[in-house]
Amino acid sequence: MKLSTTPPRGMRDVLPVEVDLRDRTLATILDVYRRRGFVRIETPAVESLALLTRGEGGENEKLIFKILKRGERLAASRDSEELADLGLRFDLTVPLARYYAHNHARLPQPLKAIQIGPVWRAERPQHGRFRQFTQCDIDILGVQSEIAEIELILATADALSAIGLEGLTVRINDRRLLTSLVRHCGFEEGRFDSVFIALDKLDKIEAAGVVKELVEEGHAGPAISALMALLETSTAATPTPERLAQRLGDSLDPAASRALTRIIDTVTEAAAGRFRVMFDPSLVRGMSYYTGPIFEIRHQNEASSIAGGGRYDRMIGKLLGHDVPATGFSIGFERVINILTERGSPGVDRRAKTAIVFDEDTAHLAAVLAMARDLWDDGRVVTLELKAKRFGKQLQDLESRGFGRVVVFDADGGARDADPTPRPERERPA
Amino acid sequence: MKLSTTPPRGMRDVLPVEVDLRDRTLATILDVYRRRGFVRIETPAVESLALLTRGEGGENEKLIFKILKRGERLAASRDSEELADLGLRFDLTVPLARYYAHNHARLPQPLKAIQIGPVWRAERPQHGRFRQFTQCDIDILGVQSEIAEIELILATADALSAIGLEGLTVRINDRRLLTSLVRHCGFEEGRFDSVFIALDKLDKIEAAGVVKELVEEGHAGPAISALMALLETSTAATPTPERLAQRLGDSLDPAASRALTRIIDTVTEAAAGRFRVMFDPSLVRGMSYYTGPIFEIRHQNEASSIAGGGRYDRMIGKLLGHDVPATGFSIGFERVINILTERGSPGVDRRAKTAIVFDEDTAHLAAVLAMARDLWDDGRVVTLELKAKRFGKQLQDLESRGFGRVVVFDADGGARDADPTPRPERERPA
Repeated sequence: MKLSTTPPRGMRDVLPVEVDLRDRTLATILDVYRRRGFVRIETPAVESLALLTRGEGGENEKLIFKILKRGERLAASRDSEELADLGLRFDLTVPLARYYAHNHARLPQPLKAIQIGPVWRAERPQHGRFRQFTQCDIDILGVQSEIAEIELILATADALSAIGLEGLTVRINDRRLLTSLVRHCGFEEGRFDSVFIALDKLDKIEAAGVVKELVEEGHAGPAISALMALLETSTAATPTPERLAQRLGDSLDPAASRALTRIIDTVTEAAAGRFRVMFDPSLVRGMSYYTGPIFEIRHQNEASSIAGGGRYDRMIGKLLGHDVPATGFSIGFERVINILTERGSPGVDRRAKTAIVFDEDTAHLAAVLAMARDLWDDGRVVTLELKAKRFGKQLQDLESRGFGRVVVFDADGGARDADPTPRPERERPA
Repeated sequence: MKLSTTPPRGMRDVLPVEVDLRDRTLATILDVYRRRGFVRIETPAVESLALLTRGEGGENEKLIFKILKRGERLAASRDSEELADLGLRFDLTVPLARYYAHNHARLPQPLKAIQIGPVWRAERPQHGRFRQFTQCDIDILGVQSEIAEIELILATADALSAIGLEGLTVRINDRRLLTSLVRHCGFEEGRFDSVFIALDKLDKIEAAGVVKELVEEGHAGPAISALMALLETSTAATPTPERLAQRLGDSLDPAASRALTRIIDTVTEAAAGRFRVMFDPSLVRGMSYYTGPIFEIRHQNEASSIAGGGRYDRMIGKLLGHDVPATGFSIGFERVINILTERGSPGVDRRAKTAIVFDEDTAHLAAVLAMARDLWDDGRVVTLELKAKRFGKQLQDLESRGFGRVVVFDADGGARDADPTPRPERERPA
């Protein structure tokens, strides 16, 4: 029986053209981050299930690929709970917390970390979503000040600009403000997360949809009305954290609103019009571990974000024994690649790429290699290609792969540039 | 209970300094390969167990991390054989064969592929060996000519030279020659692999050890004597494939010895003394899938290789239905990194790295960011750092991390370069 050669369900092969785009994009992002003093770290793809299933991962914890125990340890397992004790990571934040707790004494303080790598989630496969995908995060560990958020936001916006994305909008909010807001409106303590989940959908289902969901969830009518009224007035004009804080009164820590104002003002000034910055009091961000400022970046008029993050000051403490302030910003790399692919990536410079074509049994292989080495030493891309039976088609193939110059070695060792492939000429209106 | 923060058994965290070395090394290797017309491809980390356990992986197939089935499919599994149908890849060659069989119509022909990525093997952890490690392979698919081997060997030797490894020796042999040799000596048909396994240890256990193992394996005395005599005479002087082929007579395909001679002669000439090239009739290389020329590269006087590969013309056919000629060369990336680490990596250029230090509550954050942006726009590395209570220690830390220039913002917004950290002066003999 012939084996299927398709990748496993939800996984995929990446063709050379896309790998090239992905590599160039990552290199640009990495360069921006490195020049801002961030350093790359690496954790293993595999972590203990004990770490991965502590509640920090929310819904993602249901999507873990678990790794079967081996040998005697598997034989000694009695029920399905015991069959596995390792899993593939579903994000880069939970492993980062473990990494920091384990290695902090040997790390720069504060740590400005870059993480780039695959994560795995056993999601139902759908168009454009895969079970293995790349995340690209920066995190600052050990800085309590909102300076950290300012650095993260500027670095991420700069990285997205550097890869050619325009019309970016940074939206900023704070989990403490959101909590005060919901408490102020009179929602039941302990059920705030359910309010956040509904609010998170404001862009997709609009105000009426959010109200409907809050009603269905059994929240009190007056609280719902108060929330929607506050959000409406605060988003109608240009909202500011101060204005909202005034309405919330004592329930909001003044330090939270001061920090939020400083982030928004500083980032707006530093952006100098290169990207938009706005306060969005309805911004929620999914994960429950956030404790302070939260933020995301959208591309032009798209409804969903291409980068998101926030402060999570209490995650590391659970592993280390004492809290370490932490905040991070993650680029949705696969979404970014989709945007760049749909737009069409800029062409390759053909002039720098040469193909040297020769017969398999040439007596002049040394001359072929010497010519190639001269060009390599000069920094150029040179591919060696055996002359195909269908030489015309070979020339077309090489041209389509970006080899703008083709040198052909004759049987007598002479080298000549191949005639360029004839192109269909188009009349241009004068 | 506090959770352990150590990585899973045999896995490891990589600290920033090592990631930096790994990234720079990979970038250099990638640049050499790309300039030779190779293109990078990517396959998923996860493959079906049906693919991974077809016998191509040899001993590695016993070391697969298997992934537990999920939900209803797990519930329906009756015995431990059925608990998993996916696994983590143990090398990059078996996935490449699947990738090519699945995608060949959309790939350049011939395909010159680069693969860089992690693989996983549940080996018994030991010093310097990990259960997740990086492989770095190039393969040429679709070229029957030994031109492919010449390209692979030159590209790999150039890549290892480019990262600063000196004293390289390329050893070359051919599986067909090895088979003829063993047959010629009179070993029992069908038991050649057992001879190869013993021969593979020649460097470690020397001739006497090989003889002992062959005897213990029950091979015939005359065959063993004939083999050792042939190897001794052919390694005593400068051995050539022709000289050995003459002794083997009709049992060796003349095309095999011609190709081997052409590879050795061409690579030797192209090396121009930059690295050594030698015919090694005792070279075996572990995997059973090799069908033609095999090769490895050693660093200086080390007994084991830092790169290895060979031709495997019959692997893809088993998936595609018709054979596709294929040959590949894999750099043992972790061994290379160990050598570079032991040697000490070249220092970072400190002049280009600047740290800007300021107070958390500075009123001049915009000026700090403006100065940083000017330097970033100029291509420099600039980190923003809040002024620490122990400023002297902070300066030392920054210097040890390679920040050769430290600019301090005063409370009044003035910027000045910090005095360099006092260094212990040493008397130098005049």
